[in-house]
Order: sequence, then structure tokens, then C-alpha cells
Amino acid sequence: MTQLPTVLDVGRMAGVSRQTVSNVLNSPELVRPATRERVEEAIRQLGYRPHASARRLRTRKSSTIGVRLDPMANGISGAVLDRFLHALTEKADARGLRITLFTARDPDDEIRQFARLRDGADVDAFVLTSTFYGDTRTEWLIENDVPFVTFGRPWGIDDMDDPQHRWVDVDGWAGLREATRSLTASGAERIAFLGWPSPSGTGDDRRRGWRDALRETTALTEGEIAALDVASEDGVAQGRDAVRALLDSGVVLEGVVSASDSLALGALLALGPDIPVIGYDNTPVAAAIGLSSVEQPVDEVADGVLMLLLGERGNDVVGWDAEATDARHRLITPRLVTRTLALS
Amino acid sequence: MTQLPTVLDVGRMAGVSRQTVSNVLNSPELVRPATRERVEEAIRQLGYRPHASARRLRTRKSSTIGVRLDPMANGISGAVLDRFLHALTEKADARGLRITLFTARDPDDEIRQFARLRDGADVDAFVLTSTFYGDTRTEWLIENDVPFVTFGRPWGIDDMDDPQHRWVDVDGWAGLREATRSLTASGAERIAFLGWPSPSGTGDDRRRGWRDALRETTALTEGEIAALDVASEDGVAQGRDAVRALLDSGVVLEGVVSASDSLALGALLALGPDIPVIGYDNTPVAAAIGLSSVEQPVDEVADGVLMLLLGERGNDVVGWDAEATDARHRLITPRLVTRTLALS
Repeated sequence: MTQLPTVLDVGRMAGVSRQTVSNVLNSPELVRPATRERVEEAIRQLGYRPHASARRLRTRKSSTIGVRLDPMANGISGAVLDRFLHALTEKADARGLRITLFTARDPDDEIRQFARLRDGADVDAFVLTSTFYGDTRTEWLIENDVPFVTFGRPWGIDDMDDPQHRWVDVDGWAGLREATRSLTASGAERIAFLGWPSPSGTGDDRRRGWRDALRETTALTEGEIAALDVASEDGVAQGRDAVRALLDSGVVLEGVVSASDSLALGALLALGPDIPVIGYDNTPVAAAIGLSSVEQPVDEVADGVLMLLLGERGNDVVGWDAEATDARHRLITPRLVTRTLALS
Repeated sequence: MTQLPTVLDVGRMAGVSRQTVSNVLNSPELVRPATRERVEEAIRQLGYRPHASARRLRTRKSSTIGVRLDPMANGISGAVLDRFLHALTEKADARGLRITLFTARDPDDEIRQFARLRDGADVDAFVLTSTFYGDTRTEWLIENDVPFVTFGRPWGIDDMDDPQHRWVDVDGWAGLREATRSLTASGAERIAFLGWPSPSGTGDDRRRGWRDALRETTALTEGEIAALDVASEDGVAQGRDAVRALLDSGVVLEGVVSASDSLALGALLALGPDIPVIGYDNTPVAAAIGLSSVEQPVDEVADGVLMLLLGERGNDVVGWDAEATDARHRLITPRLVTRTLALS
């Protein structure tokens, strides 16, 4: 257990939130002068040093990064996290870093694993995937000064620009916008979005990309756009049934963009090969059947994660300090892979 | 670097092969008395103790298993090794063991990684995947007394029953035999096998299962069977082209069994939905399009690997010693998953 004071200790002594302490350290202009002085006094009294454990990462002999691996869902879309793990392992190895895998039943269990792996000095930093609204894991890591980067942005408004939460994400908004515009470019207007029920951080982001593209490139009214918004749990059969229900309700479609390849494949089953469908994640399934899909560039994500974790800026390796680099977050633009259906 | 004498040192002193030393230790009745005495004398002189490092595995504090992770091939069939990694991580975690990932460019590089990870005391044992003919990696691990289990049997004849090479594998012969018999059960005879070019350990094993099923259940001659044997590199387009070439040569088909889901999907594209096709690996692609496929039970494989690595026998944990347990190899029977095509 670390004996060093944490940002949480500073906050408690000063009577402010962790976020306020973080702002004092990284964006002091956001904090009222009286509050700032109180926090700075607590920092002095406690001898708090930001990111002490993070600095150790590059100096420790066995530099090891912990990554949680979930039981295989055996679905189509889980493959993107496997692809990310392959890329991360390769790029970490090239930097002399190891990946250690662990499992966790739920976020609380994952936090216990963080503590266990850190206390055993087995793991120096963590890379997290699958961030969600109100994620307690990143809170714990920040409060305990454990270096981490998430693949996935924080979905709570407050944390989005938190300099202590470094993240890399793929811009799902841009991906769905491009996919939608690729269909409206040929004159089609009635493009449905087949996604997950709200609230879903990634799902709602992708939905906004579709909606913005329709607003920009078609004459559809807000009501007409809303009628083309279809929510379903992920899965081929679920996607197929949701699109069938939409057709049964009398809606006419000229195309479908989806939040996942599973849903897209379901749409394909409901619609047949004559109405264009675009998936998301560019899974092997999409490649195999010739489904167009939005690809998440996991190599770029893995590079970004390691650069943020190590405080690298280009080829110039600098210290971990948040103050020493401007790039705390990276939003990577995905790429639309256009194909012709093989099964038709 | 270990200072302990290895089985290779014993062999050198006695002027015999590693395999002979192994036989003296584990199946002395196979060795001529004069040779046996020479080996036993070398063991005494050198103070060789079999499996010394293996015994350490359960007593060391940071019990860590190294697993090589390849760059993502982005194909369909690589998914089975990802599924295995998920299962292995979960079951290792339940036993208090960690998985550390590393990469390697080729078998020689992998051996250098073994040495580096062992010398740094970072990894106590290895789990290998994708064994091949003349695999130099397992030789090195045996000679250096590093505990390991392979997912995949040794494909050289000499090593198949080597008690020092513990392995778990899925019985591809049984899988293809069952798949083929499921098609001939309804009276069909002209079932083609779409597999990889020989020699391929796993591929030839699956081919034998198909051939044996045709011999057992049909009236086809050996020549007719040989005409239904189609070899192709793995891939959807490759499988499609190979089956089209077979059709163009005038061969009439009543069904296809394949060495992979990629090839099976290619066969489906060439044949259309009316001729039954069965794949192998039960990948998400097969589930998504409703392709019947042979599933490798990766949970059972992961359990078997850990039991052999830890010397577990049922719930009874015994030492690592080869002498203490009979089960050195496990051949697990796969299961045929039968589906109805969704895309038709």
C-alpha cells in the first residue's frame, strides 16, 4: 500500500472535490483564488506530489501493464477488443513493456484487482477498455495515483476534459456521419440508424453522427429523421426483428447504417441485398460476407494509449507529468471500408 | 541462467539422445539395460533432478504463465486462439496464476523470448499454441527444463508420446468424421473435403476423419474419394475458387466438409444454399450466417492445459512429476453445431 498522500487526501484536507484539486494542479485559472490557496496549502502540508507512481513506470525494471480480459462473449463485435489487445501487446513489447492479463466479475471486483496487482508491485499501470457512464474504476485509479489510460472516453460530462484521465477513443460520430453521407451522396434520403437503446455513450455518439449527416445532406424533417431511428439490443436476430418491425410499421427505407456489424447483418437479413447496409467495427464477418463497415484503427489506438501512458510526444520521450505535454486525449477518426456483398 | 544440469547434459554425458534419457526416466522398460545403466550413471554424476524448475512453479510467489500473442491476422479462424486466451485467463486467474503476453517474429525469436522471460524470473511456465512439424520451441523448453503445455499435439511421430511434452488438443479427426457422417446419414455419398495442402498436422488429421467416414458409410471407391479431396490455402475467396474449379472439372457434389469456416464460407459462395456445407471452429461468422460448424471446446482445452501444467488430477493437486500422474496428454472431442442457413 502506498504511503504517499493522494489527490483524495488533498481534497479532504482542503474540503474540496478531487476534481477541484485536479483543476488546481492542471487548470488553475478555472478555480477561484481562495479555493486555490486552500488546496495549495493542503498540497504543501501533505507533501503531495502529483503522479509519483506514474513517474516510477519508466524507471521500474519490470514495467508491466495490466489489462482486464473478459470472458468471451462469442459475439461478433467483441473482436474489436481482441484486435486492440493484439496491437497493444505488439507495440508494448517493442517498448520493453509487458502485458499482464486479469479478469474481473464487475467494476467493484476490478477495483479490488487493481489494488491487489498494484500492492504486489506486479503491475505499474493499467489500460482500461469499455468505459461507461459513472465509471467508478477511473475515479479509484486517479484517487490512488495509479497511472492509466482508457480506450474509450469518459462518458460523464465532468470528466471529459479531466487532465488526470487520459484517454484514446475512436470518433464514432465521425464514423457514422461519413457512413451516412456515403449513402445520401447518391441521392438517397431515408437512411435508418440501427443502434442500441439510450443512454449508451458509444451508441448515442454514433447516433448523433447519423442524425447530423441527415440534417446536413437531406431535406428530411426532424420528425422524419426520428422515425428512422431504431433501437435494439445488440445481436443479429435482434437487428433483423427491429428492422422487420420498422418495415411492418410502413416506413420506407433507402439504406441502413448501424452501431455494430451484428445489427447490420440483422438488417441485411431483413432487407435483402438490394438496400445498402453499413456496419460498424469491420469485423471478420463483414469482410467475409462483403458488408461495408466502419473500421476502428486499433493500431493507432494502441500507439496513442502507450504514448499517453509513457508521456511520449512523437519520438521524444518526456516525463509522465501532465504539465509536460499537451496531448492528454486522442480522438481518432475511423475509416469507412466499402465493399460489395458477396452473398447475393 | 539456470545452473542445474539438464536432460541434454545427461544425454551428452551418456552419449544418448534426449529422448532416450526421457525414456529412462519415464518408460525404462523401453531402454536396453546397458544403455539404461549408462544414463543412470550420468544422472548420478551430474546430480540431475527431473523437472526441478517445474516443481518451483507452485511454490513461487508470482506464478506467471507466458503466452505468445501474434499480430492479428484479421481472418476468421484466428478467433479460436483468442477464445482460448479468454478461457485460459479466466481459469488461470481462478487458480491465482497470471498470464503475461509477449510477441515473437518467428520460432527462433520465440525461443529467445522464452530465455529472456525465464532468466528475468518473470515467467515460470509457458503455454504454446500452433504447434507445427519439427517444432524447435518444445525441444528447447524440454532441454532447459522449463515447464510448458501446448494447445496442439506434437506433429513429429517421435514426440507424440514423449512424457516430457504435455499437450492438450482437439480431435480434428473425430470432428470431421462426425461432420461427414452427419451428411452421409441422409443417403448422400459425394461429400467433398475442402482443406489445406499437405503436409499440415491439423489439416491432414481433419482430412483423415472425412476419408474414414466416407470409407465407413459410403460405397465410394478410393479413386472416387480422392477426386473429392480439394486442397486450398485458407481464405473465403480461395475456398470459393477451389470449389468452382472442382465443379468445372465435372465433379458432382452432394455436400462439403471443411477444415475451416473461411473455406466453408467460400464453398457456400460457390455452391449456393442448396448443397450442405459444414465448417470448422464455429466462429462468430458461422453463428451469424447460420453455417453448421465443428466447435473446439476451448474451455475444456484451457482446463486441461492448466491441470497438466499444475499436475492436477481431478480435484487432487499432486506434484508436477511425470511419475506422479498418468495423464500427460488430453485429446478432447469437438462437437458439431448444426444450423440452418440464415442467408438464403
